[in-house]
Amino acid sequence: MTLSVDLNADMGEGFGPWRTGDDDALLEVVTSANIACGFHAGDWDVMASTMASAARRGVGIGAHPGLPDLQGFGRRRMAIGPESAGNLVRYQLGAAQAMAAGVGAEVRHLKLHGALYNMAADDETLARACFEAALSVAPDITLFVLPATAQERAARDLGARIACEVFADRAYGDDGRLMDRARPGAVLHDPEDIAARAVEMVTNGAITAASGKVLETPVDTICLHGDSPEAVTAARAVRAALEGAGVTLSRV
Amino acid sequence: MTLSVDLNADMGEGFGPWRTGDDDALLEVVTSANIACGFHAGDWDVMASTMASAARRGVGIGAHPGLPDLQGFGRRRMAIGPESAGNLVRYQLGAAQAMAAGVGAEVRHLKLHGALYNMAADDETLARACFEAALSVAPDITLFVLPATAQERAARDLGARIACEVFADRAYGDDGRLMDRARPGAVLHDPEDIAARAVEMVTNGAITAASGKVLETPVDTICLHGDSPEAVTAARAVRAALEGAGVTLSRV
Amino acid sequence: MTLSVDLNADMGEGFGPWRTGDDDALLEVVTSANIACGFHAGDWDVMASTMASAARRGVGIGAHPGLPDLQGFGRRRMAIGPESAGNLVRYQLGAAQAMAAGVGAEVRHLKLHGALYNMAADDETLARACFEAALSVAPDITLFVLPATAQERAARDLGARIACEVFADRAYGDDGRLMDRARPGAVLHDPEDIAARAVEMVTNGAITAASGKVLETPVDTICLHGDSPEAVTAARAVRAALEGAGVTLSRV
Amino acid sequence: MTLSVDLNADMGEGFGPWRTGDDDALLEVVTSANIACGFHAGDWDVMASTMASAARRGVGIGAHPGLPDLQGFGRRRMAIGPESAGNLVRYQLGAAQAMAAGVGAEVRHLKLHGALYNMAADDETLARACFEAALSVAPDITLFVLPATAQERAARDLGARIACEVFADRAYGDDGRLMDRARPGAVLHDPEDIAARAVEMVTNGAITAASGKVLETPVDTICLHGDSPEAVTAARAVRAALEGAGVTLSRV
Repeated sequence: MTLSVDLNADMGEGFGPWRTGDDDALLEVVTSANIACGFHAGDWDVMASTMASAARRGVGIGAHPGLPDLQGFGRRRMAIGPESAGNLVRYQLGAAQAMAAGVGAEVRHLKLHGALYNMAADDETLARACFEAALSVAPDITLFVLPATAQERAARDLGARIACEVFADRAYGDDGRLMDRARPGAVLHDPEDIAARAVEMVTNGAITAASGKVLETPVDTICLHGDSPEAVTAARAVRAALEGAGVTLSRV
Repeated sequence: MTLSVDLNADMGEGFGPWRTGDDDALLEVVTSANIACGFHAGDWDVMASTMASAARRGVGIGAHPGLPDLQGFGRRRMAIGPESAGNLVRYQLGAAQAMAAGVGAEVRHLKLHGALYNMAADDETLARACFEAALSVAPDITLFVLPATAQERAARDLGARIACEVFADRAYGDDGRLMDRARPGAVLHDPEDIAARAVEMVTNGAITAASGKVLETPVDTICLHGDSPEAVTAARAVRAALEGAGVTLSRV
Repeated sequence: MTLSVDLNADMGEGFGPWRTGDDDALLEVVTSANIACGFHAGDWDVMASTMASAARRGVGIGAHPGLPDLQGFGRRRMAIGPESAGNLVRYQLGAAQAMAAGVGAEVRHLKLHGALYNMAADDETLARACFEAALSVAPDITLFVLPATAQERAARDLGARIACEVFADRAYGDDGRLMDRARPGAVLHDPEDIAARAVEMVTNGAITAASGKVLETPVDTICLHGDSPEAVTAARAVRAALEGAGVTLSRV
Repeated sequence: MTLSVDLNADMGEGFGPWRTGDDDALLEVVTSANIACGFHAGDWDVMASTMASAARRGVGIGAHPGLPDLQGFGRRRMAIGPESAGNLVRYQLGAAQAMAAGVGAEVRHLKLHGALYNMAADDETLARACFEAALSVAPDITLFVLPATAQERAARDLGARIACEVFADRAYGDDGRLMDRARPGAVLHDPEDIAARAVEMVTNGAITAASGKVLETPVDTICLHGDSPEAVTAARAVRAALEGAGVTLSRV
């Protein structure tokens, strides 16, 4: 039996004159791109050019909706209720679908961004509102979820297509949550370590928490980063290691 | 032969805590609603509630994209090139489609807003970019156009479904353009005058310019306003007069 | 001895084409106006015209900075740290000072808006960052504070000029905090009740909590509202009752 | 007699997570920094940190107000009338003053940004409205102007302190206007050429147009750029050449 996994990264995180990360380099590595939809980053022009690049390379396009907080890059929690959260996911997903149609592609998946991602991991009502809104627009879309959180529960309860996402460069707690970045050892930096961990996760079908505890989970997609040259190097190392281990890379 | 016409008005022109006009009253009068898409007005929550109201009443939902200028309500011309204009129309139309899907409806037409409407009436390259972008997302959408302008030419050249729009409360020049609001007599205020003019336009299939010159044009849809109690009164008068004259009111 | 109090209300809460409340009516009632500074409401044009109206009537101008959340009107809590909160208060206060200078007036006081007001009532570090930033720009400014909260403690600790603010239309808990609006009896609606309560607060130099407990506090300024015709009626009733009771109304 | 000139550059042109140019490198070269004020770039946090850096190095701080067009970086002309233009300059200048006060500095000069700069070079009514607004807030501020344009005329007519600005890396027409960037030879790229031209301008007290025509003008400040490594190299070359020629570098 051949193991298979998707590699995803956030992209199109510029706005106006500004750009973030090396999208061109990352598009050579990933199989899925989570594209910012204009609220926390990613205006209509950035979306158009990023999606065109992704489509040319056959990389799967995903909507990556965030909170309406450009200055905070969508990373600050805001007290937004489920109804409004559903509306802003719906709005951004629709915009992404239209931009994708403009380059002859379609939106295949959705991943929440930043604080919205974290809020939906904690709050099943919010997660459900976001995902229900997405499914009302795109019933066949694949929802990227953080396993063992309210995100996964809400998505499963809705009967949605799901891709469980893991982070090869982050330490996990015993509850399956990402360890706080501020804690020592919470973030891995060495490309070889990250790559080895990615292979281990895919091969084992499990996350090993910092304590050594093994958390079984589907490992459908691995989140990579491109916001620094080191991140791109690590992303390439992950891809090479997975290919070396005979793992097929295919978009969700 | 029964004459038929659509009645349209701009709606959902609030943002955050603010509202404009009496949408509920207007929805009882019009057959099509042009719904602001978030750039010049109309955030995701306003769009959701406005579309729900329109859908409940069977009023046709249209996207009403504008320039990215909330403070200027999209009424200030901006030096935006065709490519970016196409992108911002595409983005807003997609967002509108998703919001409509959320209330079980669909976007049937598109009308450009404010300065973008005026710029596209003057500049066929810009008009074409906007309309081509819209059609790439929604090939069957009906484009509302100002007759005898670059808008109509671009839309016809693209082979799109078109609805020629007239204004019953505005005086026209001999070239078919709206007379500048600042000129005396450019704007009609009396509901009876406006209603009589609407019936005349539909019956004659023509606009009578201020000079008396008759400009033949399809009269597919009449633009009404709801931004003041007087405007709503005039809108009701137009509807009543058309019904009294045996004209069928039906959405495009 | 003559009792004296300031009457304040939020104003200039429009943006672009939108307006909120009847500022002209309120300016006849209050002695101080808290003017929105562009983040949650109040663009540069609205600020200019509102300040001109206030200055013409001799109403004291205050800066009313809020969170950068126009769609949420600054009412949604956001996870903003003290340094950034200080910066956004400083920015908005400076903008307000310049707009006031443009009409030959000056900014006399500062009151935090919405969620920022509430966050600063809970969190002394945040309150101190906001107030310290304000004082670095305007050392003589009067800070409006909610008595018995982190706002008052931070402002006193900084040695600032302070005006303790009370709400004549709200019920209080025993801890001096406003009772949640959702609870029955939390908001008074009858103008006579509100006016009587205002006179009682000023005369007693104390707030009577819902339980009957008397909370002594300076009563320097009373917050009025103008967002509905009823609110304006209540505001007028408060002013008339205070004048009838021989209380001098004077801006802080 | 010792010749003296100011060197200025735009800075603080980031927003939220984004940064533009190498401000730290430029701050070692220039004597004045034009700091974006939040409309086209430069949020409150970026302003605070950029101004702190400038103040530490003794670089003069200037306000660099632009059009309310973040996505277009203030480079797209907008149909904004004089009154609103005055208001937005006033607002941004006040914000900049407060941010400067926060780091113990003050705003010494003002330079319009992008499309607003160009519009004010063409339209004396607009230029006057912008500058009058600035002077109403800061009567002693130095206005940077493009010589021989409506900017200079308006500023002189207002009796303001003026610094005439030249561009060492741009070709000029016989009318003293910058040649369109799209024309061959309009932009100089070689650091040595740019540096030599800077020395020549300061020494001659004149601009030599592309035709060879000599346009006499005060040369008070030279605009440098930092948006690419090449630009920083050229900026350093200009400074070194001026120092080598015995020109004193001092902020306006």
